[in-house]
Amino acid sequence: MLTAAYSGKHTMTVAEVDAAPPQPDEVQIAVAYVGLCGTDLHIYHGHMDARVDTPAVIGHEMSGTIIEVGDDVKDWSVGDQVTVMPLDWDDTCSACLAGHQHICQNLDFIGIDSPGALQGRWNVNASTLVSLPSDVSLRSAALVEPAAVAVHDVRRSELVAGDKAVVLGGGPIGLLIAVVARAEGADVLIAEVDASRRQLAADLGFEVMNPVDVDQVALVERWTDGVGADIVFEVSGAAAAVLGCTGLAKVRGTIVIVAIHPQPAPIDLQRVFWRELRILGARVYQRTDFERAVELIASGVVPVEALISTVEPIAATADAFAALADGGSMKILIDVQAGA
Amino acid sequence: MLTAAYSGKHTMTVAEVDAAPPQPDEVQIAVAYVGLCGTDLHIYHGHMDARVDTPAVIGHEMSGTIIEVGDDVKDWSVGDQVTVMPLDWDDTCSACLAGHQHICQNLDFIGIDSPGALQGRWNVNASTLVSLPSDVSLRSAALVEPAAVAVHDVRRSELVAGDKAVVLGGGPIGLLIAVVARAEGADVLIAEVDASRRQLAADLGFEVMNPVDVDQVALVERWTDGVGADIVFEVSGAAAAVLGCTGLAKVRGTIVIVAIHPQPAPIDLQRVFWRELRILGARVYQRTDFERAVELIASGVVPVEALISTVEPIAATADAFAALADGGSMKILIDVQAGA
Repeated sequence: MLTAAYSGKHTMTVAEVDAAPPQPDEVQIAVAYVGLCGTDLHIYHGHMDARVDTPAVIGHEMSGTIIEVGDDVKDWSVGDQVTVMPLDWDDTCSACLAGHQHICQNLDFIGIDSPGALQGRWNVNASTLVSLPSDVSLRSAALVEPAAVAVHDVRRSELVAGDKAVVLGGGPIGLLIAVVARAEGADVLIAEVDASRRQLAADLGFEVMNPVDVDQVALVERWTDGVGADIVFEVSGAAAAVLGCTGLAKVRGTIVIVAIHPQPAPIDLQRVFWRELRILGARVYQRTDFERAVELIASGVVPVEALISTVEPIAATADAFAALADGGSMKILIDVQAGA
Repeated sequence: MLTAAYSGKHTMTVAEVDAAPPQPDEVQIAVAYVGLCGTDLHIYHGHMDARVDTPAVIGHEMSGTIIEVGDDVKDWSVGDQVTVMPLDWDDTCSACLAGHQHICQNLDFIGIDSPGALQGRWNVNASTLVSLPSDVSLRSAALVEPAAVAVHDVRRSELVAGDKAVVLGGGPIGLLIAVVARAEGADVLIAEVDASRRQLAADLGFEVMNPVDVDQVALVERWTDGVGADIVFEVSGAAAAVLGCTGLAKVRGTIVIVAIHPQPAPIDLQRVFWRELRILGARVYQRTDFERAVELIASGVVPVEALISTVEPIAATADAFAALADGGSMKILIDVQAGA
């Protein structure tokens, strides 16, 4: 089979290797598609070298078909179409014992901390499998994982129908949050500096603004009849967005921190205090989020094709990462079977 | 009657003036004691000159006895011992309409935005009155307002019995939060740089640490058996505390922003994301908080005498503010009847 591995800064290496058989509690998946995400890009840029052992077969947004079932696995069969929730928790730390397994203090994120989906035959523990209904294509299903992130972020925000939500950042996760929030009945305004991303958001029917061109606070005040936004999702990772987000939220409004901010960023705690705001961190997902993401893709709520920029064969993984690094793409998929 | 008014930076002026009769919806209170707080000190330092019209009779932590009742006032009688919840909301803004009158967008904070309690005869709207039981002394009752702040902060945190709470800052509000949290069944650790305040906290039975002397994260980890604190109250107003607070909280833990931070302060959003933390602003109080504060003082839970540093006559208000500005005091009370 072909594998694509991160083997050092800006280097993805494709190799032909023999597939190992699955362990008794595993299934072997013929991987169909793998989506590349911001975390993969961080790895590619070498930002996560302290965490990742090279060569590392990465990739955690995927779809595929079960082709072999370990001896101890029940409930799954050859031919089942699946995706994987790529989390492996220890079930013993205080986070797990409190019911927050998804943010286990010793979490193994499959595809970062252990081998991922950029390989023709991928063995995963059966407990990670999520079933795909027959009306979901494998191509669409590669977006289940990022959609599950968005579902988790929206669920964590406690958004309800009729809410006005501002999404700061119109990349793939920002757009997916907007889509999920709208599906829950919210009005959504997306702030995005990149013109083509802003245009895509507008084409998908969202209100948009360029945060560097407008008085955001005044615009959001007008958009909310002077009240302020019920919920603000910080998905941009920009320090300016952190500084500005508190000014957009209503009294007792909620700000959800979705983006990764490697450096401490100044935030207006006076506004947090004055308006009794709530700031929530939101990370990865729980099984219910994956199941809801599958539903949203099956029902066509998620505009999958609008989000997919291009599909490249696994042999071209290095070029695909270079293109992702250049910007301008939304979601790039790797077709793992093509040419394999 | 004597009044004490802020009349410009570092200037408190005591004057003899005639008392006006109460309006039909007001009562007139013979003010007994007024506590000086951090906000009063901000006014004294001139930091709030843009908000305060001079001369301004300030003071909002108080106790007293009703001596006259306006024609339209029901339910209150001459001789009733009372304190005042010093909030006047507009009942029409979006915050009020959503049930958050205490953080009304056009809130008049009585004692800052309109005349306060540093006067022998104070007319207030009857709607602001809070009844004092006969077993609460007027001296103790001057602490109801700051205790209500603490009750509100603890209630906002959703603290439950058995929680481990860290209070950053051991001034009057920090100690009151610790007292209220302990009354709810929490274990409390107070971080305070000032040795005398730390000693007072220890004397009151709390765990203490000097945040500049210890590895706070390691200490809190040990104190919580590796879990992290359920709740962290940021009461210090120090930028270092903001930067450090996220490291003390457990997975899904809560940080309550109680202190005023006039400048945006860097915060570790990576940690907020990673542990799915919750940061809550908490400001002033609601009536239920005042009523609970009265109960906690009546039952002796609040160590009133330990918190009162000194009691000065209203004629010495200028000296009292100078002493407060010098630091080293906890709560200074003004005896408004003494020498009046």
